[in-house]
Amino acid sequence: MSQLIKAGLVGVTGYTGMELARLMTHHSSMELVRATSRSEAGKTLADIYPFLTRLPLGELVISQPDPADLAAECDVVFLAVPHKTAMEIAAELLDEGVKVVDLSADFRINDKATYEEWYATEHTKPEYLAEAVYGLPELYLDEIMGARLIANPGCYPTSAILGLTPALSAGLVSTENIVIDSKSGTSGAGRGAKVGTLFCEVHDSFKAYGLASHRHTPEIEQEISKVAGKDITVSFNTHLLPIDRGILSTMYTTLSGEHTVDDVLEVYTEFYADKPMVRVLPKGQLPETRYVRGTVFCDIGIVVDPRTNRLIVVSAIDNLCRGASGQALMNANLICGLDIDEGLPMAPMMP
Amino acid sequence: MSQLIKAGLVGVTGYTGMELARLMTHHSSMELVRATSRSEAGKTLADIYPFLTRLPLGELVISQPDPADLAAECDVVFLAVPHKTAMEIAAELLDEGVKVVDLSADFRINDKATYEEWYATEHTKPEYLAEAVYGLPELYLDEIMGARLIANPGCYPTSAILGLTPALSAGLVSTENIVIDSKSGTSGAGRGAKVGTLFCEVHDSFKAYGLASHRHTPEIEQEISKVAGKDITVSFNTHLLPIDRGILSTMYTTLSGEHTVDDVLEVYTEFYADKPMVRVLPKGQLPETRYVRGTVFCDIGIVVDPRTNRLIVVSAIDNLCRGASGQALMNANLICGLDIDEGLPMAPMMP
Amino acid sequence: MSQLIKAGLVGVTGYTGMELARLMTHHSSMELVRATSRSEAGKTLADIYPFLTRLPLGELVISQPDPADLAAECDVVFLAVPHKTAMEIAAELLDEGVKVVDLSADFRINDKATYEEWYATEHTKPEYLAEAVYGLPELYLDEIMGARLIANPGCYPTSAILGLTPALSAGLVSTENIVIDSKSGTSGAGRGAKVGTLFCEVHDSFKAYGLASHRHTPEIEQEISKVAGKDITVSFNTHLLPIDRGILSTMYTTLSGEHTVDDVLEVYTEFYADKPMVRVLPKGQLPETRYVRGTVFCDIGIVVDPRTNRLIVVSAIDNLCRGASGQALMNANLICGLDIDEGLPMAPMMP
Amino acid sequence: MSQLIKAGLVGVTGYTGMELARLMTHHSSMELVRATSRSEAGKTLADIYPFLTRLPLGELVISQPDPADLAAECDVVFLAVPHKTAMEIAAELLDEGVKVVDLSADFRINDKATYEEWYATEHTKPEYLAEAVYGLPELYLDEIMGARLIANPGCYPTSAILGLTPALSAGLVSTENIVIDSKSGTSGAGRGAKVGTLFCEVHDSFKAYGLASHRHTPEIEQEISKVAGKDITVSFNTHLLPIDRGILSTMYTTLSGEHTVDDVLEVYTEFYADKPMVRVLPKGQLPETRYVRGTVFCDIGIVVDPRTNRLIVVSAIDNLCRGASGQALMNANLICGLDIDEGLPMAPMMP
Repeated sequence: MSQLIKAGLVGVTGYTGMELARLMTHHSSMELVRATSRSEAGKTLADIYPFLTRLPLGELVISQPDPADLAAECDVVFLAVPHKTAMEIAAELLDEGVKVVDLSADFRINDKATYEEWYATEHTKPEYLAEAVYGLPELYLDEIMGARLIANPGCYPTSAILGLTPALSAGLVSTENIVIDSKSGTSGAGRGAKVGTLFCEVHDSFKAYGLASHRHTPEIEQEISKVAGKDITVSFNTHLLPIDRGILSTMYTTLSGEHTVDDVLEVYTEFYADKPMVRVLPKGQLPETRYVRGTVFCDIGIVVDPRTNRLIVVSAIDNLCRGASGQALMNANLICGLDIDEGLPMAPMMP
Repeated sequence: MSQLIKAGLVGVTGYTGMELARLMTHHSSMELVRATSRSEAGKTLADIYPFLTRLPLGELVISQPDPADLAAECDVVFLAVPHKTAMEIAAELLDEGVKVVDLSADFRINDKATYEEWYATEHTKPEYLAEAVYGLPELYLDEIMGARLIANPGCYPTSAILGLTPALSAGLVSTENIVIDSKSGTSGAGRGAKVGTLFCEVHDSFKAYGLASHRHTPEIEQEISKVAGKDITVSFNTHLLPIDRGILSTMYTTLSGEHTVDDVLEVYTEFYADKPMVRVLPKGQLPETRYVRGTVFCDIGIVVDPRTNRLIVVSAIDNLCRGASGQALMNANLICGLDIDEGLPMAPMMP
Repeated sequence: MSQLIKAGLVGVTGYTGMELARLMTHHSSMELVRATSRSEAGKTLADIYPFLTRLPLGELVISQPDPADLAAECDVVFLAVPHKTAMEIAAELLDEGVKVVDLSADFRINDKATYEEWYATEHTKPEYLAEAVYGLPELYLDEIMGARLIANPGCYPTSAILGLTPALSAGLVSTENIVIDSKSGTSGAGRGAKVGTLFCEVHDSFKAYGLASHRHTPEIEQEISKVAGKDITVSFNTHLLPIDRGILSTMYTTLSGEHTVDDVLEVYTEFYADKPMVRVLPKGQLPETRYVRGTVFCDIGIVVDPRTNRLIVVSAIDNLCRGASGQALMNANLICGLDIDEGLPMAPMMP
Repeated sequence: MSQLIKAGLVGVTGYTGMELARLMTHHSSMELVRATSRSEAGKTLADIYPFLTRLPLGELVISQPDPADLAAECDVVFLAVPHKTAMEIAAELLDEGVKVVDLSADFRINDKATYEEWYATEHTKPEYLAEAVYGLPELYLDEIMGARLIANPGCYPTSAILGLTPALSAGLVSTENIVIDSKSGTSGAGRGAKVGTLFCEVHDSFKAYGLASHRHTPEIEQEISKVAGKDITVSFNTHLLPIDRGILSTMYTTLSGEHTVDDVLEVYTEFYADKPMVRVLPKGQLPETRYVRGTVFCDIGIVVDPRTNRLIVVSAIDNLCRGASGQALMNANLICGLDIDEGLPMAPMMP
């Protein structure tokens, strides 16, 4: 049997860290050898996550985040820490020759000024921006396979970019007047103790937040502008769902000509024909977040509305899996020469 | 003490019937004297709704829906039955001289052909269309007070029309390119036994349905076209939330000029100044369905996005209360000469 | 119109404070004139609770908790603060001649030593223990009407004591071997920001906690021992439900003789015949928390199991309403000479 | 590569069928070659389960349940059909030489008369009762490996028997006075269209049902009586949780002597030392259903209460996985000579 690839995880205490631990439990070619946390160092993973008891990973002792140690022990390191913190650690690890999959936003925005405007902080490692590859395999497969620094996409942008790309790429829709109405499960808000995400504040309710101001806006605009070959400004708006996992984005675009739903479906089906983790649904079917739960699938449904001359695209992903740790593992698999889907469950848990 | 107004309810077994029973329990000027159901006649309300045990209404014996009996005993009758059935009963009751609040869609659409196209059925009582008053008190207060047939608005239309009216009325936004992205709690799907609304099919999930094809579309277009004074076509789209009650609509419009959020808020605040059941939220606040739970409030939040030249309006209502039985009771109060808010709880149940 | 009774609320920011604000909104004989919070003083209630916007109570300005001010302005004061804090404020208010309804545990346990053992703190106001009346109206109606200090019962004890009292009082069951298996909604855990009560930690899960060690144990034992006329030790155990509100307790007792379910139902029905806020369900029906949601009802279901010679009693209450603020309002009504149910909604919100 | 074992599934449209399809998707040594349904025959699995689109299993065409066809194509067949139907098919398949894992109750009860009393139907295939092996691997590993007919345990019994066995086996507790208070997620109620399991009837509520009368009672009594070596009668009672998956059973027993929690934990830990799918939690920890979600783990927590001389055992399983299809797959693996855990995810999906 060949040597296992050794992976490290910086920031194990959040939901994305938890999700990566879940996925690594079933990975047969990659092993998690380091998991770090400033507050929990010294405990085992099973100490903080009882659900890992009696599993091999449960015995892993959490360590302090030490780049030298990570570099000595790991082939690839996942960064599941807040933006700004991530850029510092990433730079140290890269300098030590370790591959990095950064789940934060720090290397997603190509333009330093745009990053600094939306994230309201200085980018202190701009020298790595050029080499960072945006880790959306359906768009950048070759680049990812040769990369050493992956900017793992945001959850909302993953759903939006995969949903809009075929239509923009084929010129089916106008680049003007695009509205993205997204709804996310609560795990996207993180595992910090806040009144606003207490059970009794979220359960049996629904709200809009961050309208016209979400930080994922420039990331979406950057990527779909590349696809369209011209600058696009979108109206991107977010809502909080009383579910654990899942993002569903409803995207409103204007048809550029008389395209039927069959025409559009053909374009989408063709575009994703050799990309098995995107599922273009048959005419008349629409995505549901449960159908992608726990997986890296992105489900896409298509509606053409002749009354308003619109193409409506609906996409659904699991925000923690495809929108974060699952996609990070796809990228890690690729930069380590493994099959893209190793360790990734493809059948969702239903119900 | 003055005489109690006597009310009847045709169709007590659904969620709207249930909600009306709840509200009538606390009404001091109107009494429910008839509740009908073909399948449950002969039982008491407490037999089918154990939560009404030891309450006066719990002892009411459910009767067969007999127009003559209803006419003899009631001053006003609520129809909580499916469309098409409603128009037949309404006609009989009106002919007997009883006031009718119809919760179905049968008298909402002024134009017979439009109704028949969207509802795919013949309208057999078109002679009552002209006199039916659309029961949205913020728009038609005077007409309602003089009416004998109220077409109680649909749940989605209530949220959309209240949200868009001030902007359209003041000309703040274009009549083109309006997108309404609505999300509804599951009680809106009714109390019929269907696999699709089982707990395990809805819980912890979210989906789009009925995109660009929902029957509430012509109702919205009819009303906002009147407001704007010109024909408006909207893109209206619906989603299913894993909550019991609540509709939140996010509405995307294009500003007609350089209006700031303060300008828009002033228009909205002014418009609803003397209409206390609509709450225009302060700048920076957005509605949440829980804040209107169990009430007839419609909460409205305003966002102006200069990047895309858009006014985004978010409205929230309780689909069963403001979107159905609570609004029906507002209308019944008005046509019976009572205060609009009698029997209506105004403080939501939190959490 | 007669003078409104003036009430104060110390501690408005938790779920019990929120619930009291909801109930006071619809009270016609009592007015909330003071609401205090150390952290939120100076804001209006609508500032912190947007759902009170456009309601009279929303304009109330939150004040610092000042006993002298409360005494000057209020006839009765509700204490919705943690135990230990409550006893200090209660003493000051009583000394100023104000009636107090204390929602904390500070005056529930008659025996100082027992309190100090279970709550692990010194009781510094033991001189008020003797006069405090345990505010369970079904047991202590007369005492409550003459009291100036009410120890408002705990949520779990309310469900357990109401469920067990008729059987113990009539000697239908043994005082040995009683097991109380209780399950509570998450609002019982309070509104503090803790990881353990985040939406994603509670939703779609269920757990036991505090087995054989919950602080409500001595309160239950004290009251049912009085009922039975002998010391009772119970096994009381608690679980966390992914719902907002509601406690359901399943109580296992041993029959003292050959009692049929009809016999037992007769005893229960008789016992609660003149106590309309307890509903003994017909044979074959069992309580559901939704049927008491938002109300002060306690629903009780009875099962006799001849195979194991057991009487199983199931009771359901709303932990925030009957288990806290609603019961507090019942008590305040009583000590102020009002009808017990003023301001209290009796029809639950369904669904 | 060795030959794949061929499996059939009779009854693919319920939640247990759905769960088995999920698990088979990731099985590397067993292939689902037949899935039957009277109502859906002719469609593919992806037609009825969109979440299987683009997965190999999604292309499987559903067939009519034909024993001859199943016998010709399958090495082992899972029966996920109602009791009574199952016994007929099982007999036909066994006669054709196929191994059977029956998820119904038809072969769980050794005594024909007991079965007929609790299930209120005649057992028409009693000749197979003697050879059927109760498929709880922690108790019957050797028998299972040699069996051709597995009576797959019920969901509640699995949680109860695994929780009580070590204590009864070691004589730590009395065989008298055992109370089992169980709570189950709603998937246990099946996928039939019923008002009682609609989202709006279950969500945000909790209820008891089937007290002292659940059909799983004799199954529990049969198995723990064998363990204890004497007849045991239990009080077994069930409740409905507003969660998709999970059973948590709180079991109340009387200590037979002065056993500390450490003593008991040692007995439990020892008993399950070589049975890795049961996790005895450390002192002070209690199970949560989320920690076993989607897995075959049974988590067990231990509390000793000296005040009442009780041992309280809490166990948690996933009712669909360990309580049905996952355990069925464990059994199928064993009777086919595979490792017990093949195809089974061991890391739960969190959150």
